[in-house]
Amino acid sequence: MRAVDIIRAKRDGEVLSSEAIGAFIAGVLDGSWADYQTSALLMAIVLRGMTPGETAALTDAMLRTGRRVDLSGLAGVKVGKHSTGGVGDKVSVVLAPLVAACGVIMPKMSGRGLGHTGGTLDKLESIPGFRIGLSVDEFLAVLGSVGCALIGQTADIAPADKVLYGLRDVTATIESVPLISASIMSKKLAEGSSALVLDVKCGRGAFMKTLPEALTLARSLAAIGQAHGVPTEAVVTSMDAPLGRAVGNAVEIRECVETLAGQGPPDLLEVVEAVGVRVLRLAGRAADDAAALAQLRAAITSGAGRRKLRDMVAAQGGDVAVIDDPSRLPSAPFVRTLEAGDDGVVSAIDAELVGRAAVLLGAGRERKGDPVDHAAGIILRTRVGDTVRRGQPLLDLHGADETKMAAAREVATRAVRLGGEATVAPLVRAFVSPAGDVREP
Amino acid sequence: MRAVDIIRAKRDGEVLSSEAIGAFIAGVLDGSWADYQTSALLMAIVLRGMTPGETAALTDAMLRTGRRVDLSGLAGVKVGKHSTGGVGDKVSVVLAPLVAACGVIMPKMSGRGLGHTGGTLDKLESIPGFRIGLSVDEFLAVLGSVGCALIGQTADIAPADKVLYGLRDVTATIESVPLISASIMSKKLAEGSSALVLDVKCGRGAFMKTLPEALTLARSLAAIGQAHGVPTEAVVTSMDAPLGRAVGNAVEIRECVETLAGQGPPDLLEVVEAVGVRVLRLAGRAADDAAALAQLRAAITSGAGRRKLRDMVAAQGGDVAVIDDPSRLPSAPFVRTLEAGDDGVVSAIDAELVGRAAVLLGAGRERKGDPVDHAAGIILRTRVGDTVRRGQPLLDLHGADETKMAAAREVATRAVRLGGEATVAPLVRAFVSPAGDVREP
Repeated sequence: MRAVDIIRAKRDGEVLSSEAIGAFIAGVLDGSWADYQTSALLMAIVLRGMTPGETAALTDAMLRTGRRVDLSGLAGVKVGKHSTGGVGDKVSVVLAPLVAACGVIMPKMSGRGLGHTGGTLDKLESIPGFRIGLSVDEFLAVLGSVGCALIGQTADIAPADKVLYGLRDVTATIESVPLISASIMSKKLAEGSSALVLDVKCGRGAFMKTLPEALTLARSLAAIGQAHGVPTEAVVTSMDAPLGRAVGNAVEIRECVETLAGQGPPDLLEVVEAVGVRVLRLAGRAADDAAALAQLRAAITSGAGRRKLRDMVAAQGGDVAVIDDPSRLPSAPFVRTLEAGDDGVVSAIDAELVGRAAVLLGAGRERKGDPVDHAAGIILRTRVGDTVRRGQPLLDLHGADETKMAAAREVATRAVRLGGEATVAPLVRAFVSPAGDVREP
Repeated sequence: MRAVDIIRAKRDGEVLSSEAIGAFIAGVLDGSWADYQTSALLMAIVLRGMTPGETAALTDAMLRTGRRVDLSGLAGVKVGKHSTGGVGDKVSVVLAPLVAACGVIMPKMSGRGLGHTGGTLDKLESIPGFRIGLSVDEFLAVLGSVGCALIGQTADIAPADKVLYGLRDVTATIESVPLISASIMSKKLAEGSSALVLDVKCGRGAFMKTLPEALTLARSLAAIGQAHGVPTEAVVTSMDAPLGRAVGNAVEIRECVETLAGQGPPDLLEVVEAVGVRVLRLAGRAADDAAALAQLRAAITSGAGRRKLRDMVAAQGGDVAVIDDPSRLPSAPFVRTLEAGDDGVVSAIDAELVGRAAVLLGAGRERKGDPVDHAAGIILRTRVGDTVRRGQPLLDLHGADETKMAAAREVATRAVRLGGEATVAPLVRAFVSPAGDVREP
């Protein structure tokens, strides 16, 4: 099957066979497809779309040409979790220990931050000594002893995705539900979990700006899971304002520890609980949602969740002293407070602009491979709907460099809007079942 | 202007500015656009289209980044001619000397054959010594002394087109009216003529299969000419069966000489006259079509056209003995006749299959750069609508190699269909004026 014929078929709106899709992915990996042929097909897919069957076949081809972690040696139910990415999104670092404390094994490979969204790996590396680069054997050992492990994606997981993603970034072919779905699911299915819960973000600071778009992606992801025999649920959550109060790396880990100690911000807790309930239900650990929620809350109250985080950090080589006393996490030499210029109601805190301000502080990166400053970040001191007085603190900028602080301050000032209507969308917008049914909270 | 932003704009159906299109073509030439970005934009153009304004801007950018021949030193009207390509299409070799004999200067850069369509350059090179690679100065000198010259495209004409065409061929992005139009017109406008007549082929053996498709392309080409101040007319002609009796190289040159001697096949003569009338009218050499036609016929009857061909061949280094006596052209060692397997009416002679059979004989090429056998080819001995008896000759295969002959015979057998309705579409289908108005013959 020649590349040009496969490209032509998709260009003309035809449905590609599994063989054609398999030939494409094989060609991408063995170099028999030139990059310019791959990008032409990607653009044709963006504009012509793919059926659920084609999307499942693409995922399958990407999955099969890489390694798939074998978790069968671990007793118990394994549930994976993924977020489509947001600002202040530290759910995984709270959730994984919490569900592990409830008896569910959660293996998770995470990513690094890029652009305005942060990455779990960068956050975890603010813990001195913490190793995200475990071998698969080490990963299995931590899962066996602790019940959760958070690591980076190994090089042999879905290698085609790396090639495709690199091209999509520079050819304006990111924005495609089938391509996004196959990219996410080929990596998640490779982790070997028996079920998946996905947190699909929706809003200003997310890739999917509207609820219908987010639901389309959520249903596409669930359908791929279904096609692979891995029950996959999605929770659609708002990402208009940052999640929680902390945006950065060490500042977010500190907030995670506080949340597991029962002192977390309510919005973060709400998402952790919404996703956690789905995890426990999919794992068959609770008869109904109320029972699942009770287990999660008990794991916080008892300190079991926090102990699991401590155990995981220890097992992955990290310094547990920072979990016991988060004030020992890296901290920035300068803290500057942004104050309200006027009296008013906080009508919006733009997640994307807060994320961009954090990048300017050094907490994130514009380009792959750039280093990050683990101590840098932002602490929000107001929430949408608060009434503030002139001079009242809106947020704190933590950074190492006054020039960066000034640039970040300019962006952060635009992020917090005073006046007008403060409309707070519900945080949890919808649930999507493995069969693709949508349910409102 | 970043490549990814220009690609995204076209992907989303936006109209690209002249600046964006200029940046694209500049980037293609200076290498700042990667091939994979170029092919992604090409696919977006295929699927999203371009407005006439964008198409003119693309043509202009491709034209401006290359050389434009300056014909202002030649006195008289210069009219260019182009065909979108067909099988047995030898119109240029007859037309250029004929209109030169009528006082119109016709500068023409031609191409080589690829796939089932032949190329004027390959045909001309069957004349021993004939040089298609003239410098621009030599080109101008031949035009000045003879009034017509047929050469290959110099490397500095529309260099962006070469890069784009190479990519389009392997990324299924050929089939786009704006891209085809800009490719053709950037090269034709670079030739420096003050007006153009285009022979847009339509039918089984042509790129455009239907009359509406051919008219869309013809009007797009005329609009680009208009935007560049070069009046451009199109004649849409049928390409269901091959044009004339000869398909190949030397066999076609022989047919050209015969046509200029008043012994050409009627269909070839009809297209030569239809295009020639438009050339003379655009050049202001005739008050009406009838007067133009009379001039063309007189140039055949008087032998003036044939003398112009002889002069051009001499001026371009070719052996005029083969013009005086075409039996001295290269001839193939083997001739095999395909006979009718049954009695019946010839209902179709499939131009594309005849073209493919000629390629199998060695007269054409599958891949760029392959050599061609100038002596190889096919002579049709029936026309659509003829009643034939079993055993009657349908066509002759001329070749150097019995294996190739057998392969070509198999394809040629399928090309000639006996039985069923013989519907012969009119040869000249439509005229398109410089303003884009369509007129039936």
